[in-house]
Amino acid sequence: MPANPSKFLNMTVTRFEIRPGAYADSIVLMQLQAALLTLPGVHDAGVVMATPTNLDLLRASDLWHEPAGAARPEDLVLVVRADTDRAAIDALSRVDELMERPGTRTQEEFCPRSLKSATQLLPEADWVLVSVPGRYAADIAWEALDHGKHVFLYSDNVPVEDEVALKSSAATKGLLVMGPDCGTAIINGVGLGFANNVRRGAVGLVGASGTGLQAISTRVHALGAGISQAVGTGSRDLSEPVGAVTTLQGLDLLSRDEGTRVIVLISKPVPPGVAARVLAAARETGKPVVVHFLGYAPPGDGGNLYFAGGSSEAAARAVQLLNDAGVSADRSLGTSLPGGEDEGFRSLKGTRFLRGLFAGGTLAYEAQQALRPWLWPLHSNVPVPGSESLADPWRSRGHTILDLGADEFTVGRLHPMMDQGLRVRRLRQEAAHPDVGLILLDVVLGRGAHPDPAAELGPVIREVLRERDFEVVVTLLGTEEDPQDLHAQEARLHKAGAVVFLDLAEALAYVRRRLPLPPPPGAVQPVRLGILEKPLGAINVGLESFYASVLEQGARAVHVDWRPPAGGDEDLMALLRKMRG
Amino acid sequence: MPANPSKFLNMTVTRFEIRPGAYADSIVLMQLQAALLTLPGVHDAGVVMATPTNLDLLRASDLWHEPAGAARPEDLVLVVRADTDRAAIDALSRVDELMERPGTRTQEEFCPRSLKSATQLLPEADWVLVSVPGRYAADIAWEALDHGKHVFLYSDNVPVEDEVALKSSAATKGLLVMGPDCGTAIINGVGLGFANNVRRGAVGLVGASGTGLQAISTRVHALGAGISQAVGTGSRDLSEPVGAVTTLQGLDLLSRDEGTRVIVLISKPVPPGVAARVLAAARETGKPVVVHFLGYAPPGDGGNLYFAGGSSEAAARAVQLLNDAGVSADRSLGTSLPGGEDEGFRSLKGTRFLRGLFAGGTLAYEAQQALRPWLWPLHSNVPVPGSESLADPWRSRGHTILDLGADEFTVGRLHPMMDQGLRVRRLRQEAAHPDVGLILLDVVLGRGAHPDPAAELGPVIREVLRERDFEVVVTLLGTEEDPQDLHAQEARLHKAGAVVFLDLAEALAYVRRRLPLPPPPGAVQPVRLGILEKPLGAINVGLESFYASVLEQGARAVHVDWRPPAGGDEDLMALLRKMRG
Repeated sequence: MPANPSKFLNMTVTRFEIRPGAYADSIVLMQLQAALLTLPGVHDAGVVMATPTNLDLLRASDLWHEPAGAARPEDLVLVVRADTDRAAIDALSRVDELMERPGTRTQEEFCPRSLKSATQLLPEADWVLVSVPGRYAADIAWEALDHGKHVFLYSDNVPVEDEVALKSSAATKGLLVMGPDCGTAIINGVGLGFANNVRRGAVGLVGASGTGLQAISTRVHALGAGISQAVGTGSRDLSEPVGAVTTLQGLDLLSRDEGTRVIVLISKPVPPGVAARVLAAARETGKPVVVHFLGYAPPGDGGNLYFAGGSSEAAARAVQLLNDAGVSADRSLGTSLPGGEDEGFRSLKGTRFLRGLFAGGTLAYEAQQALRPWLWPLHSNVPVPGSESLADPWRSRGHTILDLGADEFTVGRLHPMMDQGLRVRRLRQEAAHPDVGLILLDVVLGRGAHPDPAAELGPVIREVLRERDFEVVVTLLGTEEDPQDLHAQEARLHKAGAVVFLDLAEALAYVRRRLPLPPPPGAVQPVRLGILEKPLGAINVGLESFYASVLEQGARAVHVDWRPPAGGDEDLMALLRKMRG
Repeated sequence: MPANPSKFLNMTVTRFEIRPGAYADSIVLMQLQAALLTLPGVHDAGVVMATPTNLDLLRASDLWHEPAGAARPEDLVLVVRADTDRAAIDALSRVDELMERPGTRTQEEFCPRSLKSATQLLPEADWVLVSVPGRYAADIAWEALDHGKHVFLYSDNVPVEDEVALKSSAATKGLLVMGPDCGTAIINGVGLGFANNVRRGAVGLVGASGTGLQAISTRVHALGAGISQAVGTGSRDLSEPVGAVTTLQGLDLLSRDEGTRVIVLISKPVPPGVAARVLAAARETGKPVVVHFLGYAPPGDGGNLYFAGGSSEAAARAVQLLNDAGVSADRSLGTSLPGGEDEGFRSLKGTRFLRGLFAGGTLAYEAQQALRPWLWPLHSNVPVPGSESLADPWRSRGHTILDLGADEFTVGRLHPMMDQGLRVRRLRQEAAHPDVGLILLDVVLGRGAHPDPAAELGPVIREVLRERDFEVVVTLLGTEEDPQDLHAQEARLHKAGAVVFLDLAEALAYVRRRLPLPPPPGAVQPVRLGILEKPLGAINVGLESFYASVLEQGARAVHVDWRPPAGGDEDLMALLRKMRG
C-alpha cells in the first residue's frame, strides 16, 4: 500500500454538522469558511445558513451530503472535506474557537443598533449601504427610504417583487435604490462596495454589471481620463419586471450633472422593450452616450448614441468623445509576456482546450462573446447565445468559460473576488488535464477585493506551469492607486509565469492569436483560379433577360431553348431520371 | 347610389381559371401577370403553376379562392381581381393573346435545345446560369456539373437536400454552385442576375444575400473603389445542413485571387457553429476580411478580421482598409431633401407610425436592426430577434417593416425589384392610414431590376403626399453606370416629394432623427442633484469592510450593529412585519 493512500487514490472524507438556530451574519460565516480552509488536511469547506435556496445550491455542489437536507432555514450547516476522517473531525471541533476571532472593527467604537439612531447620529448621510443576508435586506431598504435616504443594496437573493416595489416607491420620492446585487458604485469620488481608486473626471457610468463598471472605470483611468460618477443599478434592473427604473434615474441624474460630459451605459443582455425605453432616455440626456449591451447586435451609431462591442471599446470611445484630439483608443496598456515578445508566439496544439476561470460575471460573458467565433463549441455555466450550457458546472467540457461568481459556486463561500480558494482548486484541476492548453483568469483589484490575490494565485500558477507545458493568461484590472498596487500584482503574476494583460480586449486578442486554425475541410478541390483570369463565358437556362444582360456586358453566352422534360409531368420526369441512372 | 360603387365601397370581384397541363416557364408567367395588371379595371392578378408550395402561398395571399385548390401541380392557375365581374372576365379572356406576345429574344437567333449542345456551341463557357422553376433546377445543375461547369443558380424552391448534394459534389470537383436562390454575382466584371454596373477594383465580396451584395458593391463604388469579384452563395449556404460550402470556396478563391486585396463577407443570421467555421476560413485567407453577419453581436476586431454592423459600414471599412489614407468612411453620398436642409427637420407626431416597404430582404433586415431600439414594438414578416412577427403580412401593425420579396408576397408575381405593382398598392394602402407618419422604401437599380422604377413610384408618391401630410423616405441603391441612370432616378423621386438617400445607413439615420421622443415615464421624481455636490455620508448595515472602506476614503459614515430581527426566526419576523404595518 502506498504511503499516502488518500492522495494516491485521490480520496477524501466529507463530514458535516448542523447547528440548530445558530444564526450568524454572512461576513462571520465567510470568515469561518476561510479559516477552516487553512486547517491541516482540509481540502474544502462550506458554511451556510440552511435556507431552501442555499440547500439547493449546496446540493448541486461537490460538498453535498444528503443528511444535511434535514436542516431548517434557521440552522447553520457546516461541511468539511479533508484528507482523512480525523482531519475533518478536528476541523469541525475548532469551529467555536474560529468564530470568536475578532472582526475588523475596533471593539471600543460605538455603533448604534438601529438605522433610526444611525440617522440621528449622522443626519447628513444621504446613503444607506445594505449588505445583510437577502431575506433581511428589503426591510432595511424600506426603512432607509422612509428616512429619505438613497440605498446602495449589495445583498443578493432579494425577491424581484421586493425590488420592483422598492424601486417604484423610491422613484416617486426622487431616491435611488442601487441594487439588489449591486457590487459597485462611485459617488462623489467615494467608491461603494467593490470599486477601484480611479481619477475623478468627466465620464459618468450607469451600469447593471459590477465587473463591467470596474473594467470600464479602470480602463478610462488608464487612458488618462476619469470618472465623475458611477451609478450601479443591480443585475436585474434592466429586466422586464423591474423596467430599468434605476438606470433611467441614473441617466437623468448624469444628464443634469455638470461634472459629467460623456455617459457610458453598460448592461448584460437586455430585453428589446427595455432596451428601447433606456435608449430613448439616453437620447434625451443630450450628452454623448456610449452603449455597451452585451450580446446586442449594434444598430449603428446615431445622434448622441454610440455603440460599443466590449467594455474596453466602450471606455476608449468615451475617452475619444471627451477629447477628439486626445488619447488614442488603440493605445496599448502594456503587457507582461513571459519571455518578451521577441520569442514569438507558441501555437496551441490542435486538440488542446481553453478553460476560462472568471471571478467577474460580465468579464466571463464578454470573453465568451469575443471567443465564440474562434472556439466552437464553447461551454459555460452562464452561456451567451451560441454557447452551450454546461451540464455540470463542476466539470469542464472542451472549451469552457466559467463565471465562478455564479450562485452555484458561491453558496457558503466568499465571492471569488475576495477568496481565491475555489479558483485555486479549479485551476489545479484544469491544469492537470493534458488536453488543456490555456487557462484564462481575471484578477480584479480595488476596495472590497482580495488584499493580495497574486500572493495566492502566483505560487499555484508557477507550480502548475512547472508540471506541464501550457499557458496561463491573466487579465488584471485595477489602477496603480488601488490598495493592492496594480504594478506589484502584475510583476508577481508575471514572475510566476503568467502572461498578464491590463485590459480584457488585449488579453482576448492574445488568446485568439494563440488558437490553432481548424483542420481544412476534407474532400474539397480548390476552385481553379483560371476562371478569374479569362473573359466570362456562360450558358443560360431559364430567364432570357439574364442571357441578354450577359451579352450586353460584352461576354459570350448561349441561351438554351429549354422546355420542361416530359411536358412538366412529374411522374414521367421521375421515370426519366431513373432511366438516366 | 354613388356613381362608382365599387370604389366607394372598396369592393372588388375575384375570378380565377385553371388551365390543366398548361406549363409555361416562369418568365412567361411573370410577363402575363404584368400584362393582366395593365388591363382596364384590374386591381391585382396572380399567375402561377399549381405546385403545392405555390398553392400554400396563394392561399395565404389576398388573391385566394378556395376552388383553385383543386388544381394539380402541372396546371396553370390564373386569378384576377377587378372593379367589376365584367372587367375580370374580360381580362381572363385575353390571356391567350397576352401569352403570345413576343419575348425579348430575336426570333431568328438559333438556340440549342439542350445543355449538351450548348456546351458544344460555346466550349469556353465556364458558367451555366440556371433560372428555370425550382423543381427542374437541380437536374440542370447536375448536368452542368457533369460538364465541368460552375453554376449560377438563381432558381428558388430547390429542396435543401438537393443543395447539399450538389454543393458537396461540386466541391470535390473544384466547381462553384452559387445558389439556389442566388440573386447576384459579379465575375470578371460581368454581373450575373441582379447586379449593378460598378467599377472594377480590389474589394472582393462573398455573400449569402443578394441585396446585401448590391448595397455593398454600390457603396464601394460610390466611395471611389471597385469590386474584383462578387461571389453569391445563395440564401441557405450558411445554414447548418449546407455548412457554408460555397462561402468557404469563395473565401479560398478570393484569398488566391491577386486582384482581391480586401474581402467583405456578408450574411443574414448565421448559426454559431457555421459562423465559427467560416470565420476560421476568413482568418486563413491572410487578407483583411470585413465581416457583416446580420444580427451578430460583434466579437471585436481581431487579427485580419473586422466586424461591421451594417452594409454601409462594411463597405466603408473595406475601402478604408484598402487605402488607409484615402477616402473617408464618413463621406456623405448626397441627399435629396424635399426643401433643402435649411428648412430644418419636421418632427413626427407622437403616435404616428413608420411603415417600411422593402424589396430587398437584407435591407429590410438591416432597417429593423437599426431602428429596433427606436421603434418598439416593431413588427415584420421577417422579424429580427427583438422584432415581433406580423400575424397577417397583408396588414401592418404599429411600426412595421416588410420584406415584399418574401415568398408570401411573390407567389405568382415578379419580385418587387422587377415589378412595383404590389408595392404601389401597399404604398397607397399605408398612405391612406392617418396614423402613418413615414413610409420607408428601397429602390434597387442594376441589371435585372425594373427599367425605370421612379417612373412607376414617382407619380404615386406625389399623389399620396398631396392627400395627406407625411413623409416618404427612399433609399436608392445603384450607380451612375447602371442602365436606369442613378441620378435621373434620384431627381425624379425627389421631384415627387420623396426624401432620397443613396445609402441605407444615411436614410436610417435620417429616420431616427425624425422620430419623436417617447413620453417621459409618469410618477417619477427627479433625483436631487445635491447628492452629487456635497461630500458623501453613509450609514452602513451589513459587511463591516464596506464601512471601513468608506472611512478610508475620507467620507463620513456610521456602522449599525445590526442583528437579524427575532433572532432570524422567519415566523416571528413575519409577525413583526405585520405589526409594523
